[in-house]
Amino acid sequence: MRGPIRLLVLGTGHMGQGVMRLALERPGLDLAGVFARRPERRGRDAGAVLGLGRDLGVAVETSLKAAIDAARPDIAIQATCSTLADAWDELTVLMHNGVSVVSIAEEMAYPACVSPNLARELDTLAREHGVAVLGTGVNPGFVLDTLVIALTAVCKTVRSVTATRVNDLSPYGPTVLNSQGVGLTPEAFAAGVANGTVVGHVGFPQSCHLIAHALGWTLERIDETREPIVSSVHRETAHVTVKPGQVAGCRHTATAYATGRAVITLVHPQQVLPHLEGVETCDDIILDADPPVHLSGRPEIPGGEATVAIAVNSIPNILNARPGLYTMADLPLPAAWGGQP
Amino acid sequence: MRGPIRLLVLGTGHMGQGVMRLALERPGLDLAGVFARRPERRGRDAGAVLGLGRDLGVAVETSLKAAIDAARPDIAIQATCSTLADAWDELTVLMHNGVSVVSIAEEMAYPACVSPNLARELDTLAREHGVAVLGTGVNPGFVLDTLVIALTAVCKTVRSVTATRVNDLSPYGPTVLNSQGVGLTPEAFAAGVANGTVVGHVGFPQSCHLIAHALGWTLERIDETREPIVSSVHRETAHVTVKPGQVAGCRHTATAYATGRAVITLVHPQQVLPHLEGVETCDDIILDADPPVHLSGRPEIPGGEATVAIAVNSIPNILNARPGLYTMADLPLPAAWGGQP
Repeated sequence: MRGPIRLLVLGTGHMGQGVMRLALERPGLDLAGVFARRPERRGRDAGAVLGLGRDLGVAVETSLKAAIDAARPDIAIQATCSTLADAWDELTVLMHNGVSVVSIAEEMAYPACVSPNLARELDTLAREHGVAVLGTGVNPGFVLDTLVIALTAVCKTVRSVTATRVNDLSPYGPTVLNSQGVGLTPEAFAAGVANGTVVGHVGFPQSCHLIAHALGWTLERIDETREPIVSSVHRETAHVTVKPGQVAGCRHTATAYATGRAVITLVHPQQVLPHLEGVETCDDIILDADPPVHLSGRPEIPGGEATVAIAVNSIPNILNARPGLYTMADLPLPAAWGGQP
Repeated sequence: MRGPIRLLVLGTGHMGQGVMRLALERPGLDLAGVFARRPERRGRDAGAVLGLGRDLGVAVETSLKAAIDAARPDIAIQATCSTLADAWDELTVLMHNGVSVVSIAEEMAYPACVSPNLARELDTLAREHGVAVLGTGVNPGFVLDTLVIALTAVCKTVRSVTATRVNDLSPYGPTVLNSQGVGLTPEAFAAGVANGTVVGHVGFPQSCHLIAHALGWTLERIDETREPIVSSVHRETAHVTVKPGQVAGCRHTATAYATGRAVITLVHPQQVLPHLEGVETCDDIILDADPPVHLSGRPEIPGGEATVAIAVNSIPNILNARPGLYTMADLPLPAAWGGQP
């Protein structure tokens, strides 16, 4: 690679801004362009979007084709959406213009999970246009899948996997809090789960399939449950107040079955201020395996920062990969590249 | 890959036997041949070597060329030695005969560490003969390097790495115990370090360089210290007795410097029966990074089993790789492949 890598960032929300900031700090990486879906951002300087108090000479484009033409990027990071369907149009425009992509859309962590046909089409398009495409993130993309796979490297046999991620939603605003049912009564939470407004975590099927793909397991089904975490104490953040008896978050679990038994159990209780009831945040992976493996991290790897980092850290792998659609299990380990510590 | 992968195992010691056993259990893998350095093993059936009480129809060869001709292997696992110099002749015979290799020789985890010239020559030979070559193992090869690199994937910036592995040498026999100075007086331990008979851990420079390679760091120097772990209690295993005041093991550390400061600290105290003095075995990784990461496993990942597993689990990556010499940082994550759980 000659000269810095020219990066086009799609998305000017929390994640997109995080990627832009890291692109400014990381040696060897050049923030070449920014695309926003929100029309009102058109023409603003990226420095203003980031609140830097100085211009960066990079104007936000709201036409992706115009952004590509202006930026002439080596690679794009997509931070605009969560679903494959919503990611699709931007991905195809990028590919048709010869731009490789790292997407943090949750469903892109294992696109075949939502649609094997669309995943095949992504792979075909990527090969036709000579680009590589990857979905990643902290979860799905790392803690409950890639790290699990990494630990199986030292196992002769793996019988089952249990991975738990306990985090704190306090930093998050209304969109995330509503998707987890925070502040609802238990009855309203149940209704929200039923009508799809309480979503819980997006990415469990992707993580299960990523693990199964790496281990050569054929999954029979994946069951998911979403239960309210009912607070027994008063919890209050900048964005929400939870009274005793109200819902502080969503305990979302997924259980994947193979050979007639539960082989992958993923547990992800997301709530505001868990420590108020003595709950420590953590990442925890247990492999029922030969040899057995149990690894824990306390506190948990922080989601937002980690997603920004792993997207940027995946860039060299994607630029070095042969054309095609990749998962985290198919590429070398990303690392915090960029030169001296 | 059509049909099972034909594996040639080099080495009939503890590690070689472990690989042979796993080859018998793992679907899709066929124990096609066994090579031993010890002439007295020639012609013995692999089943007898493993004490299975039945023949496997695989006779141990003590000529590597004869073993290759008899086995027609897709891949070889080398479990005969620790150093690059000692591994060299077998590696070149394998490569000249078109056989890809996974080596658990510690110095093969990052061969350029001992000799950049020999590493280049390995890479050239591998390309000339269309084969791929990898060094791996639990340590070096995983806990104090690959797993560290994996965790940096979620970091925007890494300032320094500290990784500790506390293990128990109780299962090991005289060769390993002597190399760690177990049972010596502190004075004899110091003399052993000075004259090279007390070796400590083999692999610290390789782990440091593997991390630096992945992160793009240029190391200035690596300092190693070997200190006696003097027991205050009576410790006794099947192979050694340690009286109070004698040495129970070796606390070996390595510190790697870049930009004038310590950036990688690896700590590996190896001793018999650490729990007798309240010391828990563990693997522990701390990244001074944004975001910070701290992961621990208790007890430690057991060395022997894990090395056998990671060597076998690396086979598909090596068979799918383009010709050349690889490190663990250059290949996709190995996983416990082999079909249903």
